[in-house]
Amino acid sequence: MTLLENARNGIITDEMKQVAIAEGVTEEFIRQGIAKGEIVLLGSKHHKDVRPVAVGTGLSTKVSASVGIHDKDDSIAGEIDKIMAAIEAGTDALMDLSVSGDIDGMRKEALAATTKPIGTLPLYQALADAKQKRGSSLKMTVDDLFEVIEKHAAEGIDFLALHCGTTMDIVARAKREGRIDPLVSFGGAHLIGWMIHNEAENPLYENFDRLLEIARKYDVVLSFADGMRPGCLADSLDGAQVHELVILGELVTRARNAGVQVMVKGPGHVPIDEIETTVKLQKSLCKGAPYFVFGPLVTDSAVGFDHISAAIGGAISAFAGAEFLCYVTPAEHVGLPNKKQVYDGVIASRIAAHAADVAKGIEKAIQWDLEMSQARRNLDWEKQMELSIDPETARRMWKERSDDFSSECTMCGKYCAMKIVSQFLNKEKATA
Amino acid sequence: MTLLENARNGIITDEMKQVAIAEGVTEEFIRQGIAKGEIVLLGSKHHKDVRPVAVGTGLSTKVSASVGIHDKDDSIAGEIDKIMAAIEAGTDALMDLSVSGDIDGMRKEALAATTKPIGTLPLYQALADAKQKRGSSLKMTVDDLFEVIEKHAAEGIDFLALHCGTTMDIVARAKREGRIDPLVSFGGAHLIGWMIHNEAENPLYENFDRLLEIARKYDVVLSFADGMRPGCLADSLDGAQVHELVILGELVTRARNAGVQVMVKGPGHVPIDEIETTVKLQKSLCKGAPYFVFGPLVTDSAVGFDHISAAIGGAISAFAGAEFLCYVTPAEHVGLPNKKQVYDGVIASRIAAHAADVAKGIEKAIQWDLEMSQARRNLDWEKQMELSIDPETARRMWKERSDDFSSECTMCGKYCAMKIVSQFLNKEKATA
Repeated sequence: MTLLENARNGIITDEMKQVAIAEGVTEEFIRQGIAKGEIVLLGSKHHKDVRPVAVGTGLSTKVSASVGIHDKDDSIAGEIDKIMAAIEAGTDALMDLSVSGDIDGMRKEALAATTKPIGTLPLYQALADAKQKRGSSLKMTVDDLFEVIEKHAAEGIDFLALHCGTTMDIVARAKREGRIDPLVSFGGAHLIGWMIHNEAENPLYENFDRLLEIARKYDVVLSFADGMRPGCLADSLDGAQVHELVILGELVTRARNAGVQVMVKGPGHVPIDEIETTVKLQKSLCKGAPYFVFGPLVTDSAVGFDHISAAIGGAISAFAGAEFLCYVTPAEHVGLPNKKQVYDGVIASRIAAHAADVAKGIEKAIQWDLEMSQARRNLDWEKQMELSIDPETARRMWKERSDDFSSECTMCGKYCAMKIVSQFLNKEKATA
Repeated sequence: MTLLENARNGIITDEMKQVAIAEGVTEEFIRQGIAKGEIVLLGSKHHKDVRPVAVGTGLSTKVSASVGIHDKDDSIAGEIDKIMAAIEAGTDALMDLSVSGDIDGMRKEALAATTKPIGTLPLYQALADAKQKRGSSLKMTVDDLFEVIEKHAAEGIDFLALHCGTTMDIVARAKREGRIDPLVSFGGAHLIGWMIHNEAENPLYENFDRLLEIARKYDVVLSFADGMRPGCLADSLDGAQVHELVILGELVTRARNAGVQVMVKGPGHVPIDEIETTVKLQKSLCKGAPYFVFGPLVTDSAVGFDHISAAIGGAISAFAGAEFLCYVTPAEHVGLPNKKQVYDGVIASRIAAHAADVAKGIEKAIQWDLEMSQARRNLDWEKQMELSIDPETARRMWKERSDDFSSECTMCGKYCAMKIVSQFLNKEKATA
């Protein structure tokens, strides 16, 4: 039985117990959420030593960081370094999105390097393999693709990103609609390229049952990727994007019926006024499946600072109901991120996730901020540093400002608003 | 006649014409907005060479950066450097919040250094002067305070921040309510300290007509500061904050009746789920007066990254109706910002302001993002760099990734989704 089937049958597994403790919720809450498909549990039994992570309704918002080998300048060691930076910054999950080089080696080292759940996008490797084996990625066969999918699942990848809903019908719609930026999903664009060249329907859609068999066999979570992800604010919520989401909603039901856990990937670029609609639409069409959003970016123009743009979009999305934030780094739109940019991207996403959690009523998040506020009132600097989202950075910045530990707030220089008030409030008490 | 009276009398002044051009709206739109009090025009006729800036309903969201001498480690030259960094980063306005040292010299150099509107918080200087003249800031007299206010107005300060609504009644309420962080407004806390020590009502409230006379005489904009600004999420929208806002609403009407332009300062720390309520409440109680929010921060725990927390809060606030964002730097809660942190704070606020403007339907903002999206589709890198919110940073980051100009997107390494799609879409067209 798969985890989803266990949950439906009232069985609480060890993984469910583990995540219940991590989340501070009851095991039954986790079981019910998984049974309904509103929570997915990332943590394949084939991934050695993985610490499972739950994503979904009623739980804290999670963050994922993507790395991967893109060209000859990248190395496995360099990407593992980035994984370590992302973990240090507090990421909940990772994606290995390698598209070339030693893809197998990279995946194996990533799986061995961390106990965090790891996702992949198998199409990338299938395309790269076809290029090598058959001279062109356009010559990839359907079997090639499914063999790679099965290999990733068997090796213990915890979630598989697959563009299952990007059908020919939708590609035609995107073309008719005259999008500003027609296709910005990297995998989606390659898949569509393959489809058009081979005059074939999307193999992941046509052979969806074959995919479900693999997902069932290895009990791996499917992450439906959005080939029609809007690449600019102007294209947000257009017919192509929404049509694909309708199809993904159907596939969610088919996956659940097969006992397979599923989440849905989302945009991208969304103006602030369309974020709530985007999330609520996904929740409705995809029957409450967890929503894994990429940012979203709330402006097209924050080049060099897209982690901030994504933090705005991520916070609003998570407050509206998205449960999983794919980070965006400052290097988005200019290049691949270096280690520091990976770190900064994770921190920005974590701020967004945490701010949304406080607003959504996640008890642990509220308690955290309350403790920080009390430490601030008490001028307890050590506690403030400890409770900071990134204690190391906070401490370094604080040290730069103050030579040694001081009970005086450095913000106001020689004046201290807190002290004066506290003194006067006490005085008032004494004379009252 | 003051600018507000001119607007009411149907007169379009040169300043109104200037800001109408800058905003891309009609002169009549500006005049009507000022007449209703929904737009304030920052730009004192006593501030030589100032380029007026309009803030309010229907206009692009503006950003302000604060600098100032706080202790002996600060210098006028150092603070002017920060002003230059803020301007380089694109701030719309500045505040000189000096609390010690050569406050007069700092203000004069700031006024001379830039054509941007500048605000001050005169109470700081009145307190510092009293300490020097009378041995303690608690010995400040009401005349001391008003003399400083008039000096700032006469010298050409464009907007004066004053805690006019922080009455004894409200201080008592804050105490009864048991706030987590009772008072975090620096000026507010000092004013309340003075009030309690001298057993006197708030002199700015008691002598509000005297304040209006000065504001009228120099036609300076009043910025009502919030002494009850919540200092943590848990204190947001409590009785003390809302009671003060009720009083500020009354004072808005009195100021308008006296022909004085006014805006209202706001929080601070606000959980995401309370931002819209906070803004709508201000709009209602303060009869549409522009709302100048400080952040707001959406978590208490993003120490070292509060500019990101503030960008989230600022974007949501501006989308909900706030028109003016006071920046927050990464150094907030640990110390005074250095030049780089001033720069980063302004950029983060500008991203928030711009993202909100796109969502609010500000035509120039929408057009900007559309052009960027078109440049991206056309792989026009030069144009993308030029259209970035901070072209210099974008260009530097881009150059680090690519050795020379290239039509190939560096994001995807040797694959290029855009090219493949474009090629296939053209092919489809040819065979169709």
